[in-house]
Amino acid sequence: MSHNTFGHLFRVTTWGESHGPALGCVVDGCPPGLPLRAEDIQVWLDRRRPGQGRFVTQRREPDEVRILSGVFEDARTDGQVTTGTPISMMIENVDQRSRDYSEIATAFRPGHADYAYFAKYGVRDYRGGGRASARETAARVAAGAVARAVLGESVVIRAALVQIGPHAIDRGRWDWEETARNPFWSPDAGIVEVWEEHLETTRKAGSSTGAVVEVEATGVPAGWGAPLYGKLDAELAGALMSINAAKGVEIGAGFAAAALSGEDNADEMRAGNDGPTFLANHAGGILGGISSGQPVVARVAFKPTSSILTPRLSLNEAGEEIEIRTKGRHDPCVGIRAVPVVEAMTACVLADAFLRHRGQTGV
Amino acid sequence: MSHNTFGHLFRVTTWGESHGPALGCVVDGCPPGLPLRAEDIQVWLDRRRPGQGRFVTQRREPDEVRILSGVFEDARTDGQVTTGTPISMMIENVDQRSRDYSEIATAFRPGHADYAYFAKYGVRDYRGGGRASARETAARVAAGAVARAVLGESVVIRAALVQIGPHAIDRGRWDWEETARNPFWSPDAGIVEVWEEHLETTRKAGSSTGAVVEVEATGVPAGWGAPLYGKLDAELAGALMSINAAKGVEIGAGFAAAALSGEDNADEMRAGNDGPTFLANHAGGILGGISSGQPVVARVAFKPTSSILTPRLSLNEAGEEIEIRTKGRHDPCVGIRAVPVVEAMTACVLADAFLRHRGQTGV
Amino acid sequence: MSHNTFGHLFRVTTWGESHGPALGCVVDGCPPGLPLRAEDIQVWLDRRRPGQGRFVTQRREPDEVRILSGVFEDARTDGQVTTGTPISMMIENVDQRSRDYSEIATAFRPGHADYAYFAKYGVRDYRGGGRASARETAARVAAGAVARAVLGESVVIRAALVQIGPHAIDRGRWDWEETARNPFWSPDAGIVEVWEEHLETTRKAGSSTGAVVEVEATGVPAGWGAPLYGKLDAELAGALMSINAAKGVEIGAGFAAAALSGEDNADEMRAGNDGPTFLANHAGGILGGISSGQPVVARVAFKPTSSILTPRLSLNEAGEEIEIRTKGRHDPCVGIRAVPVVEAMTACVLADAFLRHRGQTGV
Amino acid sequence: MSHNTFGHLFRVTTWGESHGPALGCVVDGCPPGLPLRAEDIQVWLDRRRPGQGRFVTQRREPDEVRILSGVFEDARTDGQVTTGTPISMMIENVDQRSRDYSEIATAFRPGHADYAYFAKYGVRDYRGGGRASARETAARVAAGAVARAVLGESVVIRAALVQIGPHAIDRGRWDWEETARNPFWSPDAGIVEVWEEHLETTRKAGSSTGAVVEVEATGVPAGWGAPLYGKLDAELAGALMSINAAKGVEIGAGFAAAALSGEDNADEMRAGNDGPTFLANHAGGILGGISSGQPVVARVAFKPTSSILTPRLSLNEAGEEIEIRTKGRHDPCVGIRAVPVVEAMTACVLADAFLRHRGQTGV
Repeated sequence: MSHNTFGHLFRVTTWGESHGPALGCVVDGCPPGLPLRAEDIQVWLDRRRPGQGRFVTQRREPDEVRILSGVFEDARTDGQVTTGTPISMMIENVDQRSRDYSEIATAFRPGHADYAYFAKYGVRDYRGGGRASARETAARVAAGAVARAVLGESVVIRAALVQIGPHAIDRGRWDWEETARNPFWSPDAGIVEVWEEHLETTRKAGSSTGAVVEVEATGVPAGWGAPLYGKLDAELAGALMSINAAKGVEIGAGFAAAALSGEDNADEMRAGNDGPTFLANHAGGILGGISSGQPVVARVAFKPTSSILTPRLSLNEAGEEIEIRTKGRHDPCVGIRAVPVVEAMTACVLADAFLRHRGQTGV
Repeated sequence: MSHNTFGHLFRVTTWGESHGPALGCVVDGCPPGLPLRAEDIQVWLDRRRPGQGRFVTQRREPDEVRILSGVFEDARTDGQVTTGTPISMMIENVDQRSRDYSEIATAFRPGHADYAYFAKYGVRDYRGGGRASARETAARVAAGAVARAVLGESVVIRAALVQIGPHAIDRGRWDWEETARNPFWSPDAGIVEVWEEHLETTRKAGSSTGAVVEVEATGVPAGWGAPLYGKLDAELAGALMSINAAKGVEIGAGFAAAALSGEDNADEMRAGNDGPTFLANHAGGILGGISSGQPVVARVAFKPTSSILTPRLSLNEAGEEIEIRTKGRHDPCVGIRAVPVVEAMTACVLADAFLRHRGQTGV
Repeated sequence: MSHNTFGHLFRVTTWGESHGPALGCVVDGCPPGLPLRAEDIQVWLDRRRPGQGRFVTQRREPDEVRILSGVFEDARTDGQVTTGTPISMMIENVDQRSRDYSEIATAFRPGHADYAYFAKYGVRDYRGGGRASARETAARVAAGAVARAVLGESVVIRAALVQIGPHAIDRGRWDWEETARNPFWSPDAGIVEVWEEHLETTRKAGSSTGAVVEVEATGVPAGWGAPLYGKLDAELAGALMSINAAKGVEIGAGFAAAALSGEDNADEMRAGNDGPTFLANHAGGILGGISSGQPVVARVAFKPTSSILTPRLSLNEAGEEIEIRTKGRHDPCVGIRAVPVVEAMTACVLADAFLRHRGQTGV
Repeated sequence: MSHNTFGHLFRVTTWGESHGPALGCVVDGCPPGLPLRAEDIQVWLDRRRPGQGRFVTQRREPDEVRILSGVFEDARTDGQVTTGTPISMMIENVDQRSRDYSEIATAFRPGHADYAYFAKYGVRDYRGGGRASARETAARVAAGAVARAVLGESVVIRAALVQIGPHAIDRGRWDWEETARNPFWSPDAGIVEVWEEHLETTRKAGSSTGAVVEVEATGVPAGWGAPLYGKLDAELAGALMSINAAKGVEIGAGFAAAALSGEDNADEMRAGNDGPTFLANHAGGILGGISSGQPVVARVAFKPTSSILTPRLSLNEAGEEIEIRTKGRHDPCVGIRAVPVVEAMTACVLADAFLRHRGQTGV
């Protein structure tokens, strides 16, 4: 995690601005010999793609990925495989409409990175948020697809939306299959109508709303993670908090653990057929920064989209007081499209932990 | 953040086990010429020291720090100053009582790192949790003291306990002065009695309880942080989640932001005498991963201490089912002593962000 | 220096194979506000470009660079400037002729990376050496152009060829201007004819020859470099040795220093108008790993091109003994085109040292 | 390689000054379960220890190492083993005699790091060179001993002195056994008398002399190293150049390769019983940055000790011109005691390459 690179052995470097010619990433350190074609990545990008429903931005981006290096196909290999060298992937920006942004060229939109980038760098690509745009997350999703190839089929990573605005799901109705059937990745069919209504009201009011995403990784063997500052939960927390609009991360019981007693929080252990089983998972699959063999569980809170039509008080670069409303094509709830991004970052963190664990211990 | 090192330009490497001869850290990359004596570090260590009250472990450790390198005093310097070379600090373990732990040599304590370390490494120093013990946080506090010297007096970092078990403070009564007057670092005098009673009950029940710590850093100028994966909030999240028993981290409004509307969450800006002022701080002082000039605010949730007298179901290294109760000298609420640790980690992250920002921009 | 990334604050990640669709690099951590257009980079790439003379490969590559991110131009800036975000640069491969390489698909060319890549990865892009091809050095040169922008005009980095095969220049005739007048970057006009004859003979014999490049950086202030493992000379040595075909690196007097007496080797100091002056520069401008204010001087030895027409004994992937001669379009002396690459790597190392020094000390 | 840390998975951080209370290192990322006692490290430190002959410094340092963390011994383990957590090692400075250095407190010794440290940091521990002293290499040797444990017995690393001043060995007389029989680690019995005479003359003249060390690692399997910037030769070059007084590094044929023809330089391959055999080793066991299975061979040039009795022109901190002669206890040839240090750095680089290779490929 340094500037625009994250990971240690499985390293991802991303680049690109919202309205530049393209964006992409370089994935370095990938094991050789893994089958990897553009289609294997595209399938994940398509899940994140904008322009797919009433509740996400209407910007039309095909998000077609090209693999520029790091793979090779010849007669002797089983289709195209990774070669162990850097995998460069590029996605061209197609539907940029830079004109949308001309009036915010010198204005700071509250809640956005506009002012902070200006204060840091003295210059900024104001079109669509530039580097701070959520478009960058396409590169994360592409990297995540490679990470999944590294992890193999035994590790299953999936995320769901568990809250929009004040409306949380009923966990008793959790059904992973359901996430594919509604436009919100909701595991609870019962909440869908509530969310639709809430988003419709929000959109009409020129407002926006926040959300909470939950991610689960099953099949992670005990032993991944590298204490103390490379703890698996610390790396997950850093990676998930680096996603646009994230304001909170918790593992397992998370903040609720503060209110538990020691007895209730202890995940008791029993002997199972395949090693230990646990009677609960308050730990979220991580003990002392190392995976325990239980499912790894994390949640991420996303703030409401900062781009809203309701006018807000602000300043411009000259320091003058202004009032600003953000037109353009925006998700009323960025948390929805964050679901595949949360999965991708989790996959990257796990792939890196896997390779480092194998490096240190040989297992 | 890699194994036992964190930071990029201001780099901290810690080492040591609970019951080894000593523990310590090496702080590398510190700017030269900063006044730094052992006393400057000891004052912070004394805040974290065990054996100071009814509600913290009774282990007696003087936690006396020695500076072994990286400082120099001669006639021409203003007392002892940093030289820019690695600062090695060591704290000897004095009150080890290894006998306390003999009966857990082959047993896994639920909630502890015992099983995970065993699964990862195949061997572990079981005495007092070994490397996973909270004793390691003394090294973090020592490093944090150096970080404060780097940041100077204009940056003020202070933390408080805002919740123990289910009992949260009344934020309307917040008074930073109060934190020095009670054994809980509570900013709310009104909650102290409630917490005392809760802890007394918890202790008598052989149980334990969780807590939430809030940290605030004022005086951080706009511009620190390095998007996208070195975002200031991402690095804070990683650093704070790496503390023992941490299960959640949030920045500014945090998880509550998910339930806010875009209008309410936007921190509007007005022109102040010294640059922009903000009408609210839901962002917790960080926009797009870069400090905005507002106070940086984070909260960390700590689970209840895993060492409890109440028997729990577990396994031993042979895979046999056992029942275990953890005797020994334990904090009923690890969150209390985590307060200075949260401050220290925040200081280290900020010092590193400061140096990197200065490196890239010259400011 | 990790896999395909080098640098700490000024970080360069390169990607691409000889016969893939493109190659490129991502430069991260660049200071903002520096004027940077594609033309500023192209001028350096043109110096390295193949197909420019009798003695370099006849592969025709325009090596046109595109900047895909990290720069921005608007009315208020002085032309296009860096924004502080990652600068992604791409060069398309045009003249690939993959058919040239079909017969070495399963054979190991002695001296090349063929066998080692196969042993490490089990799969390799054999076309033109794949990732191990000298084509990758175009990405280094592009990154070096950005590094020069960071260093500014006061730091001047220039390299020259000082030996081809057994024929070394006469240092008494050294004239930097001369390097632009001959196809060898020779600072000694008198050796040009000797080298031409040597190369002509070499080429006709289906052989190849080695070379030594010397680089000098003037205007480097005292104080850059970060002991002990980030020593300026250690980083230079690593960066220069990472260039294709490099087999040796020396700083200042280098290997000759082993035969000197302490008196002769000591660079005595006198008071100058602008700080210390030195009466000699055996140190090559670096003392204890830190720049001294003298010119930084290094030399790199390059082995003869491994692609030769003369048949050599070898093996194929099946382990069978074969005889191999490498047809195709090859430089008879890779050292010639390495001159701009040596400059570029030196620029990158210095830019990184500059930013890190500024980060730690504020100067 | 960053400040005072090197390595990626096998990471070494060193600290300490010549005349501080102690020096040491932290080795992080070591595989668990390796037998490691203080004696295993002491045996290597004893080879480097000062005060052992006429031709090395007369400073008397027992260099007794203590292991402070990262190892554990209990009934179930085979003696004391590594636990996978950071191994902290400390060596106390005993024979400091700080008074020796008082007269150089404000003077810059030519060839030493004095001026460069002052220019960089504005303050320096002038006693015995402070951090720039060769005493720090004891920490490298301790780390190297751990690295050897990681590599196991199949990898054998040994170095020899092949040149002192202008006197090179006769390679035809090379006998590794001989290195243990003379005080110079010379593999050539015939040169010993020549070197003794040369050193005696040098010492009497108040002068000093340089040297060249050669290191060889056998048993390194094909496949270690991570192109392109983590090439095995690039990492070796950086690590070896970081040793005090090093001015040049070469791999295999090194600088001599520049004068070879492509045919002579190509190491032809034949089928052996255990995989490929090579008919020569000009490559020094590394192709394209990856080990080939041949012995890894490198050479390092050391300049003459900068501390000499002969007066030299210099400056003091006030910028005044002075004449200086360096009294004290100095090696007339630092290259001699560098032999075990070169071995240690080679071991650390290889251990790190081994773990990273295993991480990426699983082999």
